Amino acid sequence: MLSWVDGQPAELLSVKDRGLAYGDGLFETIAVRAGQPTLLNRHMTRLAEGCTRLKIPIDLPFVCAQVQAFSQQLGEGVAKLILTRGDGQRGYAPPQPAQPRLILQAGAKPVYPSAYAEQGVRLFACATRLAEQPLLAGLKHLNRLEQVLARSEWRDAEHAEGLMLDTSGRVIEGVYSNLMLARAGVLVTADLSRCGVAGVMRAELLAYAAAQGVECQVRDIRYAELLAADEVLLCNSVYGVWPVHALQAHTWPVGPLTRKLQAFARDLLDC
Amino acid sequence: MLSWVDGQPAELLSVKDRGLAYGDGLFETIAVRAGQPTLLNRHMTRLAEGCTRLKIPIDLPFVCAQVQAFSQQLGEGVAKLILTRGDGQRGYAPPQPAQPRLILQAGAKPVYPSAYAEQGVRLFACATRLAEQPLLAGLKHLNRLEQVLARSEWRDAEHAEGLMLDTSGRVIEGVYSNLMLARAGVLVTADLSRCGVAGVMRAELLAYAAAQGVECQVRDIRYAELLAADEVLLCNSVYGVWPVHALQAHTWPVGPLTRKLQAFARDLLDC
Repeated sequence: MLSWVDGQPAELLSVKDRGLAYGDGLFETIAVRAGQPTLLNRHMTRLAEGCTRLKIPIDLPFVCAQVQAFSQQLGEGVAKLILTRGDGQRGYAPPQPAQPRLILQAGAKPVYPSAYAEQGVRLFACATRLAEQPLLAGLKHLNRLEQVLARSEWRDAEHAEGLMLDTSGRVIEGVYSNLMLARAGVLVTADLSRCGVAGVMRAELLAYAAAQGVECQVRDIRYAELLAADEVLLCNSVYGVWPVHALQAHTWPVGPLTRKLQAFARDLLDC
Repeated sequence: MLSWVDGQPAELLSVKDRGLAYGDGLFETIAVRAGQPTLLNRHMTRLAEGCTRLKIPIDLPFVCAQVQAFSQQLGEGVAKLILTRGDGQRGYAPPQPAQPRLILQAGAKPVYPSAYAEQGVRLFACATRLAEQPLLAGLKHLNRLEQVLARSEWRDAEHAEGLMLDTSGRVIEGVYSNLMLARAGVLVTADLSRCGVAGVMRAELLAYAAAQGVECQVRDIRYAELLAADEVLLCNSVYGVWPVHALQAHTWPVGPLTRKLQAFARDLLDC
């Protein structure tokens, strides 16, 4: 499978990389259609924001050019980008200056049952909670053991995704998706200033909904509010939008706002 | 520098390793003296406990034999062990079965100013707080961005270590050390069931102190208690014990319990 390290075809990297040692880096998962990366501006903006917060120097024009060239070779599928702080010596102190490493890996476009998008998905209720760490919240960094633990909680295909709460019990997101709900025509998604990953599709949907005149609220969500919602949906930059129809004994109908956002996401991802 | 991957000399590993992708693994930093790993039983016990909690299968006799053979080749220095869940495909779900990967890297024995052990160290007051995540607390896992951020807060050599509190303000540990205090003859160290790394030297010191008839308490520590302590010390499995003599404007004397534990640690590490 296609794989580049710092612009060269390579399937190996140094054992000294700080991405391995400490998860000291960031990643993006980019859907590629007809040789073009989708939502590139959003992905690059989030990556740059992550680099600013983690103080990892980034050559953004180089990274953009690499993603475009890689996508052209890939054609169709998913490009996973990993940017690490590069090699380090022993110890947590970041090297000065750091020489970041860019890794691009190709994957096939994932095939999900068509029922996920059509009838909606059932959420698994994850026992794994998200810890509250404002310094890392929102970033798509490489410290993902919480997601690994959460995704290990179920193996059946009946559950497409898992619901994650934070350690205080707020509704945050899916394991690999953001979550939104609609109530009385208002679109609500979790404030991600304590934990969670601020997804690029989430940002796209919020901007689109606002432009359509839909009131959008980014704020804390109580569990009871989730249950009382008119519509619930999941989104990410690879599959777009899935309605949520069930969580344990609770069910929701698939509503018109969800279908509208789903159509918009399909256009964005050309799928 | 000496480096092995799965028992073979190698300085590269697969870009598909889940240690890189998600920090999905554990590590140990082992002082090596005269071709022997020190505190091997403690290191292997913690590693096995981490594997149990993260559900990473481990061939413990193989890992022990590898560390011993690697140490023999290294002679003197530090052996860093990384055990990851091995390669993965896209997505958080752990591969079934996983094929873990063992990485061993050699480092020189770090040289610290002799004043650190003799007169004690000054602690930097880190603004970075440790998030509370009971599912990962105590483990020496590869999700270490909090330590990277904390260690980035100072660069001067005046501060040997940094003090880390949790997000609720409890005193937890140093960035790469555990912390203990003595008050009225009682040895106290933080409960690490919400965050922190349960160090092997911490375990050794607690066992030794208890055997010497010293009352030991593992419990939450308020900041005010730290300041009111008679003695404060740091410990890890590479340097042993350092007295703490200062934190901002506050100072502590170097006391007799610290010196006793320091002598014990020197014997253990043969340094």
